[in-house]
Amino acid sequence: MDSVKILLNERDMPTAWYNIQADLPKPPAAVLHPGTKRPISPDDLAPLFPMALIEQEVSQERWIPIPEEVRDIYRQWRPTPLYRARRLEKALGTPARIYYKYEGVSPSGSHKPNTAVPQAYYNKMAGVKRLATETGAGQWGSSLAFAGAIFGLEVLVYMVKVSYHQKPYRRGLMENWGARVVASPSEETNAGRAIIAEHPDCTGSLGIAISEAVEVAASDPNTKYALGSVLNHVLLHQTVTGLEAEKQLEIASDYPDVVVACTGGGSNFAGIAFPFLGKKLRGEKDVRIVAVEPASCPSLTKGKFAYDYGDTAHLTPLVKMHTLGSTFVPEGVHAGGLRYHGMAPLVSHVTDLGHVETRAYHQLSCFEAGVLFAKHEGILPAPEANHAVRATIDEALRCKAEGRSEAILFNLCGHGHFDLQAYMDYKAGKLRDHEYSSKEVAMALAGLPVVE
Amino acid sequence: MDSVKILLNERDMPTAWYNIQADLPKPPAAVLHPGTKRPISPDDLAPLFPMALIEQEVSQERWIPIPEEVRDIYRQWRPTPLYRARRLEKALGTPARIYYKYEGVSPSGSHKPNTAVPQAYYNKMAGVKRLATETGAGQWGSSLAFAGAIFGLEVLVYMVKVSYHQKPYRRGLMENWGARVVASPSEETNAGRAIIAEHPDCTGSLGIAISEAVEVAASDPNTKYALGSVLNHVLLHQTVTGLEAEKQLEIASDYPDVVVACTGGGSNFAGIAFPFLGKKLRGEKDVRIVAVEPASCPSLTKGKFAYDYGDTAHLTPLVKMHTLGSTFVPEGVHAGGLRYHGMAPLVSHVTDLGHVETRAYHQLSCFEAGVLFAKHEGILPAPEANHAVRATIDEALRCKAEGRSEAILFNLCGHGHFDLQAYMDYKAGKLRDHEYSSKEVAMALAGLPVVE
Repeated sequence: MDSVKILLNERDMPTAWYNIQADLPKPPAAVLHPGTKRPISPDDLAPLFPMALIEQEVSQERWIPIPEEVRDIYRQWRPTPLYRARRLEKALGTPARIYYKYEGVSPSGSHKPNTAVPQAYYNKMAGVKRLATETGAGQWGSSLAFAGAIFGLEVLVYMVKVSYHQKPYRRGLMENWGARVVASPSEETNAGRAIIAEHPDCTGSLGIAISEAVEVAASDPNTKYALGSVLNHVLLHQTVTGLEAEKQLEIASDYPDVVVACTGGGSNFAGIAFPFLGKKLRGEKDVRIVAVEPASCPSLTKGKFAYDYGDTAHLTPLVKMHTLGSTFVPEGVHAGGLRYHGMAPLVSHVTDLGHVETRAYHQLSCFEAGVLFAKHEGILPAPEANHAVRATIDEALRCKAEGRSEAILFNLCGHGHFDLQAYMDYKAGKLRDHEYSSKEVAMALAGLPVVE
Repeated sequence: MDSVKILLNERDMPTAWYNIQADLPKPPAAVLHPGTKRPISPDDLAPLFPMALIEQEVSQERWIPIPEEVRDIYRQWRPTPLYRARRLEKALGTPARIYYKYEGVSPSGSHKPNTAVPQAYYNKMAGVKRLATETGAGQWGSSLAFAGAIFGLEVLVYMVKVSYHQKPYRRGLMENWGARVVASPSEETNAGRAIIAEHPDCTGSLGIAISEAVEVAASDPNTKYALGSVLNHVLLHQTVTGLEAEKQLEIASDYPDVVVACTGGGSNFAGIAFPFLGKKLRGEKDVRIVAVEPASCPSLTKGKFAYDYGDTAHLTPLVKMHTLGSTFVPEGVHAGGLRYHGMAPLVSHVTDLGHVETRAYHQLSCFEAGVLFAKHEGILPAPEANHAVRATIDEALRCKAEGRSEAILFNLCGHGHFDLQAYMDYKAGKLRDHEYSSKEVAMALAGLPVVE
């Protein structure tokens, strides 16, 4: 039997990240100051981020070197394996060739350390003592806690309150790496206190947690802010996955007809898709790109492409993105991550340019796909990754119906070892689907800021 | 900085397991029939195991080929990485070179699939429909569930009742792979019913769960029994870890002065240590071998080297091993695995021959070592592996005190992603140490069977 795993030699690990801004036919809309609503300057961001990251945020260079110190840490688990899903293909009876990149081998079990490590590194180089951030289910917070431990930085995590209580183990993981974890909304910030005063029972959202972390960073010269998705430099760092996958497919003498990725804030999607999309934009190779999101948080499929705040308290700049409105709170029935109200501006931009097919899936069919995947491929995916698994299976079944042997690539962005409760709830019939209705969307969008 | 990860090419993955029986200066004591107390024949084991595994159990061949079908599945995560713990070395200020093999990259997160996969394979080849087994914390049960899913075998797991209730997520993992999980003692077997009749509140033990699984296998021609440790063929399959480590150290131009391994039933210990011990037995290379066990389950350090049953209901053959008596139940304070009353006969035998240094550690110092390890190396170890981490740190500090630059190798046999509750209990001061006293040992051993 042919091998199912395609490995890359350590010496072939990418030495630079890919910056899609260099290949865009038109630039994304300017980022605006929340007060003046005029384009911001790098200096406006300096209280929040070290200058090295701000430079990456606005860089037009196609290739941005990965510092050797970052590669040293990456090497602990990178290059990650690329798998050919031969057993799943057989079970589906599809002529498609299914490949998945597996990011669950990282210390925190997901793709998030790809950006947590360089963010911690650049902050350390800039003399920063502490990083403040938000986390939902905890994938990002645990990854930044890991990176902070490696570089000797304090890490302060505002964790969405409902997850803080429902997912104590992700919290335990963060605390083991030395992070301080605070349930959000908290009494520690003005943003948190204001929310609690108005809604004492508020169980939190990513938008609120971001407000708290940004407020702390903006008011303490020794603390900077770190974000796990959405921003250009975060997407940039994640391209290491797609670049590795490209080299691994080359080893397999293959190239994807379709790249599938789940998307919440957009960093996983950009990481696996942008290097291939870049080749398309440069006219080198064609490819279909499919973005999959939860029907209960459908920013790409039902949101508006408009200027909005990144957080609930409106402390962040205004960015043009697909958004459900910064007051969005996902339904309690939603089990996985992928629950941010907005979408990365760069992902929104290339979607608006017509380069991305978007789909929204219900969670039950995603869990069904994840269980099928685990049975045949052995790896239990994180609920977020199940969205990509579902879409990949659907694409493979389309190939079967059409008799076409296409190559499908997706990123299995994390394992589900911390998500067994969700799987058990699924098996016990306790999960249900929820579709965010057009009426709800309209209401949520009513509060969008007015920008000329 | 030199790389911290030493990879092995897939083509260099071992093609045969190493059988230490070929190199023993004297053979281990015969296995006895529980009724006649006479040496058993292969046919006596036929109701429980397929003949291919029985042949491995008694084989004197030094190298036993790994079937290509097993290597195909191994390749999903093997060869596993070998790490040089440079950051931990620096933190300790030790001149020692610390290496760790990392088995946490397997689908179930531990070394157990190394034997679960071949056991499922040989049973499948023999036409078996179902495997029955026991599990404590769930590392073994989840690994067999994974292997069963891959080969299309039903898997029935008797899970120690206290873990069944306290560790629902390992159970969820097993069920996701299609296994049926039953809390032990159960009402499904004579052994289980007898225990419940006598002790209605019994929270179970590995010995009891083994009795239930063996009883089911012995009474159903379509069901065989699978064991996750102790037996010769299980230890054999685990040698793939030590053999890979040996090749990886060769790449690093190094060889261990000391091999450290935690030991419960003995399979992790044998897997990493036997290939090196074999070289010592053959007079090729010297090495120190250190076995580490919990002070609350000290079979090697306080048990008696004597004939005993492998299970509580005395359905298994009698084997000569270091034992705390088959009625042993570990203290409730004990947080990790490594809680079997006996020790693999082959591990006991080489210990009795003077080739193994044995140590018992308290759990608090092991968790302390694990947290330190996670902080510097990034990987959170399973509580079992923390025993090896503790001993490795102690060896590294001895090297520092003596000014000696020795090479220390240990097996990081699993990640701690399913063990966050134990880590959180440790941090909260809820764990305490328990030493199994000499008086308790004497009482436990009073019931040992009389064998001429």
